[in-house]
Amino acid sequence: MTIFPSALTLKDLQESDSADPLATVRDRFVLPEAGVYFCGNSLGPLPRATKGRVHEVLRQQWGQDLIRSWTRHDWIDMPLRMGDKIGRIIGALPGEVAVADSTSINLFKLLAAALRLRPGRNVLLAEEGTFPTDLYMMQGLVDLLGGSYEIRIVAREALLSGQAFDPDVALACLSHVQFRDGALHDVEAMTALARDAGALVLWDLAHSAGAMPLHLHRWKVDLAVGCGYKYLNGGPGAPAFLYVAKHLQQSLEQPLWGWLGHAEPFALEEAYRPADGIRRTLCGTPPILSLAALEAGCDLFLEVDLEQVGKKGRRLGHLFLQLVDETLEGLGIEVACPRETSLERQLRGSQVCLRHPDAFPIVQALIERGIAGDFRAPDVLRFGLSPLILRYADLWQAVASLREVLETRAWDQPHFHCRGAVT
Amino acid sequence: MTIFPSALTLKDLQESDSADPLATVRDRFVLPEAGVYFCGNSLGPLPRATKGRVHEVLRQQWGQDLIRSWTRHDWIDMPLRMGDKIGRIIGALPGEVAVADSTSINLFKLLAAALRLRPGRNVLLAEEGTFPTDLYMMQGLVDLLGGSYEIRIVAREALLSGQAFDPDVALACLSHVQFRDGALHDVEAMTALARDAGALVLWDLAHSAGAMPLHLHRWKVDLAVGCGYKYLNGGPGAPAFLYVAKHLQQSLEQPLWGWLGHAEPFALEEAYRPADGIRRTLCGTPPILSLAALEAGCDLFLEVDLEQVGKKGRRLGHLFLQLVDETLEGLGIEVACPRETSLERQLRGSQVCLRHPDAFPIVQALIERGIAGDFRAPDVLRFGLSPLILRYADLWQAVASLREVLETRAWDQPHFHCRGAVT
Repeated sequence: MTIFPSALTLKDLQESDSADPLATVRDRFVLPEAGVYFCGNSLGPLPRATKGRVHEVLRQQWGQDLIRSWTRHDWIDMPLRMGDKIGRIIGALPGEVAVADSTSINLFKLLAAALRLRPGRNVLLAEEGTFPTDLYMMQGLVDLLGGSYEIRIVAREALLSGQAFDPDVALACLSHVQFRDGALHDVEAMTALARDAGALVLWDLAHSAGAMPLHLHRWKVDLAVGCGYKYLNGGPGAPAFLYVAKHLQQSLEQPLWGWLGHAEPFALEEAYRPADGIRRTLCGTPPILSLAALEAGCDLFLEVDLEQVGKKGRRLGHLFLQLVDETLEGLGIEVACPRETSLERQLRGSQVCLRHPDAFPIVQALIERGIAGDFRAPDVLRFGLSPLILRYADLWQAVASLREVLETRAWDQPHFHCRGAVT
Repeated sequence: MTIFPSALTLKDLQESDSADPLATVRDRFVLPEAGVYFCGNSLGPLPRATKGRVHEVLRQQWGQDLIRSWTRHDWIDMPLRMGDKIGRIIGALPGEVAVADSTSINLFKLLAAALRLRPGRNVLLAEEGTFPTDLYMMQGLVDLLGGSYEIRIVAREALLSGQAFDPDVALACLSHVQFRDGALHDVEAMTALARDAGALVLWDLAHSAGAMPLHLHRWKVDLAVGCGYKYLNGGPGAPAFLYVAKHLQQSLEQPLWGWLGHAEPFALEEAYRPADGIRRTLCGTPPILSLAALEAGCDLFLEVDLEQVGKKGRRLGHLFLQLVDETLEGLGIEVACPRETSLERQLRGSQVCLRHPDAFPIVQALIERGIAGDFRAPDVLRFGLSPLILRYADLWQAVASLREVLETRAWDQPHFHCRGAVT
């Protein structure tokens, strides 16, 4: 299989689709009839199985069995059962992942726990350009704790060189894939580098879980959180997940002491005693409808080969950039994501990011043409590449539409300039 | 309408049903064909409208409109739109309620915020026998903050007399209705008493919202949280709500700084700036499927007169206790909830609690007979009285079944003694 064909044609892309072992997975999703959906990294599309799952929870479990469902349908263990399913997707051991709350809340739990695990160290590292909620949750925690904690926002180079990890650093909270430019960290190497400096890394897997094979256990990852509604296709605002390596679980102290994290939730004791294992990261009552939808999304991943998913994501990115190079020259577009120069070293998540001063209205003009990408301030056009739903030929349609928009200055209409809410 | 008829007959109860202005609301729910459901205070039943709402979110909003739904279907403002609906149910002003996260997480936000609002005071009060998660969240916060904070668990008498409110008390976190014995606080009086002592009360409305009229604004309540899956019928693990009185909102600092609580969530700024108003209590991305289900539950309350709901709940309780008195004498049952002696002063939430040394197997034997109540350790049989779904005649069936179980010692079989999970 050629990774870099020289002058790409639509026929080449169609042949890639014919040879794609994941080609039929697309049929398991509800997708717009026309157009191409490049926002699976913002909100994954609806799996066809989801309706049935949710309907069954409504009809039988909630509707008929009511509170008996806590045991009869094992609602009570759903956060951990779902955690183990996600664990298989991210390369964790059974009992290392729980599904609960939102990514933000899970960040708070693990940030606070990480500081406890590194007493005497007062610095929290974040990377320039990281996703704001990761920063905000750090800021909120530090503000709450008072005292001498300090958040340092550092350049990627200072992380990669190890320079950022001085003896005061308790933890770094890093995105595996940078949301804006798609740059990818080497999780294993960075975790080892931090470990050698006595620090923990809390990985945010929001933009990688479900898009590429992850090996949290093999990579010796300590702590991670991730999102259910992006590549895992769990639905808008789906519950998030968190991962704690086995060896840290018994010493992990997270501060959100809800009844579900208690050693005996039904004993209704006066004093909190954390449950053993990953269960101590749970807090309140689990949202069953949302968990059922998330389960339908995650189950699809258990049927596919994640190595193939990762390969397809990379190849989609290569070919997208090749089309950009070959067809958009002189139209004011710059490539804003890392380019990979070898198959051995992956530098980019499953997304392509382009830059243009008029990125916002251009994205709107593309959306009008059925090409759903998204805008990231100040000037980035972002295209998420969900390997389960995209066809290689979709890239042709996308770049052809982009060329048409650029050549005709189609974006230069007032209604494309109105800013609305997009996540 | 007689509140205390002298010797109650089934016919009396059936006549009460005929005269009940809420009688037809029951038809808006999916309910088991036989039996009586007394667990609406644990998991409210499925409204018939819910399936359609959830289906529409799946089919059109998520399935077809995908990320455009954040604006097109106003997903982004759903937490506040839903908050205003719940605000009408609990007597809050528009903009005083948000729907978000779980009750436990919302407790954490407002507990931490309340301590900030009362600097120099270091005591958090809780009531003996309060719901454990309320205590646990206090314990987790105090453990995180370190320093000199102290949780004092005090008897109801010490709260009512005001004795508990010494000058060190920053806040009291109190359940409006005690989950185990159904005892009801006078919210207005207790809030005023605390206010006079310079303290705040954070009310947990889990067992009252949707079961009786609440008047948070009129009662001058400062802070409150509540649950979506009990009397509000939002579905298992439905999102929770929180209330912050207008006058406190601009000085409120809650520590869970997620992107959705930012003044400009889409500007992706590096520094957190809390949004104005109740929006600053939001944290992560809202769970849209669960919010849609909760909306279907709450919308039903906007069609009924909450004064009638409250009256029916009280009358169901009176009549239940009267039947217990008249028919269960000498069978080892004690009444474990407050008895009301006047119509003016309400002492009991919308539930009846009985006590028996073998409460656990008795509850199981009742469940086998279709009478779904629940057990609360160590010896309480709890019957939630959801005014929207219960018929007066259901009380007859329940107490008759209970008498049969007690008279025949039907509970005295090994399989009724196996402890399982019930929430």
